[in-house]
Amino acid sequence: MLFEHDLSRCFSDAIGESGIDRSAFEPVLAQTADSLAELREVRQKAGLPLLELPAARDDLIQPAAVAERLRRSSDQVILLGTGGSSLGGQTLAALAESPFGPRHGRPKLHFLDNIDPVTFEALLAQLDLSRTGFLVVSKSGGTAETLMQFLTLYPEVERRLGRSGAAERFAVITEPHANPLRRIAQRRGIEILDHDPGVGGRYSALSLVGLLPAMIAGLDTVAIRQGAADVLQRALTDDPAESQPAMGAAMNVALLWQKSLRTTVVMPYIDALASFGLWFRQLWAESLGKDGTGSTPIRAMGTVDQHSQLQLYLAGPQDKFYTLIMCPQAGKGPRVAPALAEDQALAYLAGRSMGDLLEAEQRATLETLAANGRPVRAINLPRLDERAMGALMMHFMLETIIAADLLGVNPFDQPAVEEGKRLAREHLAEMAGRG
Amino acid sequence: MLFEHDLSRCFSDAIGESGIDRSAFEPVLAQTADSLAELREVRQKAGLPLLELPAARDDLIQPAAVAERLRRSSDQVILLGTGGSSLGGQTLAALAESPFGPRHGRPKLHFLDNIDPVTFEALLAQLDLSRTGFLVVSKSGGTAETLMQFLTLYPEVERRLGRSGAAERFAVITEPHANPLRRIAQRRGIEILDHDPGVGGRYSALSLVGLLPAMIAGLDTVAIRQGAADVLQRALTDDPAESQPAMGAAMNVALLWQKSLRTTVVMPYIDALASFGLWFRQLWAESLGKDGTGSTPIRAMGTVDQHSQLQLYLAGPQDKFYTLIMCPQAGKGPRVAPALAEDQALAYLAGRSMGDLLEAEQRATLETLAANGRPVRAINLPRLDERAMGALMMHFMLETIIAADLLGVNPFDQPAVEEGKRLAREHLAEMAGRG
Repeated sequence: MLFEHDLSRCFSDAIGESGIDRSAFEPVLAQTADSLAELREVRQKAGLPLLELPAARDDLIQPAAVAERLRRSSDQVILLGTGGSSLGGQTLAALAESPFGPRHGRPKLHFLDNIDPVTFEALLAQLDLSRTGFLVVSKSGGTAETLMQFLTLYPEVERRLGRSGAAERFAVITEPHANPLRRIAQRRGIEILDHDPGVGGRYSALSLVGLLPAMIAGLDTVAIRQGAADVLQRALTDDPAESQPAMGAAMNVALLWQKSLRTTVVMPYIDALASFGLWFRQLWAESLGKDGTGSTPIRAMGTVDQHSQLQLYLAGPQDKFYTLIMCPQAGKGPRVAPALAEDQALAYLAGRSMGDLLEAEQRATLETLAANGRPVRAINLPRLDERAMGALMMHFMLETIIAADLLGVNPFDQPAVEEGKRLAREHLAEMAGRG
Repeated sequence: MLFEHDLSRCFSDAIGESGIDRSAFEPVLAQTADSLAELREVRQKAGLPLLELPAARDDLIQPAAVAERLRRSSDQVILLGTGGSSLGGQTLAALAESPFGPRHGRPKLHFLDNIDPVTFEALLAQLDLSRTGFLVVSKSGGTAETLMQFLTLYPEVERRLGRSGAAERFAVITEPHANPLRRIAQRRGIEILDHDPGVGGRYSALSLVGLLPAMIAGLDTVAIRQGAADVLQRALTDDPAESQPAMGAAMNVALLWQKSLRTTVVMPYIDALASFGLWFRQLWAESLGKDGTGSTPIRAMGTVDQHSQLQLYLAGPQDKFYTLIMCPQAGKGPRVAPALAEDQALAYLAGRSMGDLLEAEQRATLETLAANGRPVRAINLPRLDERAMGALMMHFMLETIIAADLLGVNPFDQPAVEEGKRLAREHLAEMAGRG
């Protein structure tokens, strides 16, 4: 197993009456058997492309070549895209990049997912266009923000580098059917990679949408898929108690139904998972938030949010389920020289490593939440690498799909956002009318 | 007024029965009169240092000199600190910095607020210590994470630059009373600035804790305080209906009491406010989350979260209050050349600016939330500059204090987190015992 999935501190025998009784959990878990059977069946028929990705390899040949082209010619690569077109890549790239820079010899990746003119102008002012690559990602090929970014950036690049020079700096990911982005890219000779129409944006991290940025960052994408395959293999058992995604989904839904906990907090104690919380947040919110049901995902970070949210988590309303994601940290990082902790009040730090402190804090938060009767799950990763990240992503995608089944909603659509898109176009048309 | 505070889309006459009846709002609002009277009284006696900050000037003399010293000698400045020691500075610095770099001639600010050994080692690997400044911030002088960062970084700097060279690269902010950080800094000849003991971390953005980083980033800190003074002046009226912080607090609490909305989403449509959401999140969570009450702050970003959270916000459970923070954007940024939007499907973008699209989207989200019966407040800023940021911060601090009064909790303490701190020290001691 690539991680340990510990739900023990969610049950009433561990945390008291705010936890779930084991006898009350069983029937919810039993309901997931149907979801698992359906997933097994759909997989046999290759009916859900997401489940085919872990074993696929051929689809990575073109992305590998594009990644190599952009990597060789670029000091930075800007990804234009938003939501599911961006968050999988962000999450994976964070495995290779720190806030202080990319992996040695790799371009720095920027994920431009907004249309604030101030940010855009700051970006343009610092870009060396001759050493910048652009990856434009829109499944439908019609995302207004992404097209706005592309249609304003591309002419600038063409003006400076000429038509063929500009095309060389770009790659586009979009669905195979005719769409605006595809047509524009074709006319300009920009290389196009096909977005699988059967893989929704928020489920696309293991497709080329997430893996092409991961390749640019220097990650082993086959290992990412192997981690996902490992989880998938174990998850689709016919005993839900053996399926960790089914257990996780059932616990979330049991806490919602039986304890009215409508909020699910994911709190990694690993900086490289800072973007993971953003990726999960879209996955969970868009998949479950419909028909008046759903639960609200919250992204937190340990230890940082001990100094921001923990007071609320421990002593505020009983309305949240917590998931802590942790690695063993003891002994890692620099140590405090005993001579420096000369102060008696600092004796507890003398000779301790930074990882010792992180380890002590993550364990303390887990235990304190439980001691305050807050249901808390521990996901313990022996290490965070490509395999583990692929495993985590597949786990949470399956957990989300199964939770949607339990709640009786479709995990793959997002019908409510269409009205806002229509209104935005109307407002834009009014502005055009005015000038 | 530095911004317009529009609560109209929270009332039942605008959004239907999920909104608050005006007649039911009046008694909640009336209850804030006591809070306002108390704040006026405490202000007359200068009894709450936070309220003295907007008019203070002398306390900025030493920080200005320290900022100048660090700015001249540094290409980057690392702030070591967490929670309230970091978030105010982060929020303010974002006014001057973009994700693509600092203001011209200013050092890049990094806010190191965690103790992940992987991040720390990536930081050390890229640092040019001879051109790096460090600002160490801990109110109590005993924050374990901050001391761990300081006690492991400082020896490295001293090893390379010698004792006096190292001291020159550092400054410390901590309370005047004796504490471990203060003693260590004193022994090493590091300059110390006093943290006002009467200003809690999450209320410290307008003190030197927030303003020293703001100075390094190149901001006009007097303008920040003028904006805060402007809000404070208008807020402490004896008619709650004229006090925007009282109105905001009453609306949050009325929605909690009458509609069971336990979540408050703050969603700016301005990239420079991305950190503002993190700052607000601590302020709201730690101030209100106690005695089993409180409401959960959620940080969102427009337009990004339209592609992640909006489905949930529109069609999920009715349990959230929304605050959109917006600037006029029409006409700003680059325009789509009409020839480029050659595609019929893109005609709606032809000739439109990036700001036009942002303007259309923020208005569409506001209207769509209201049309779906979701209570939503609009904060309209004519522009986001130092004055407006100071005004926003003071508004939300007062709103939080008044909301705490309504809920009957102390806005200034955070008693629940002590247990976790004690446990973490115990675990650390056990690890020391083992080796």
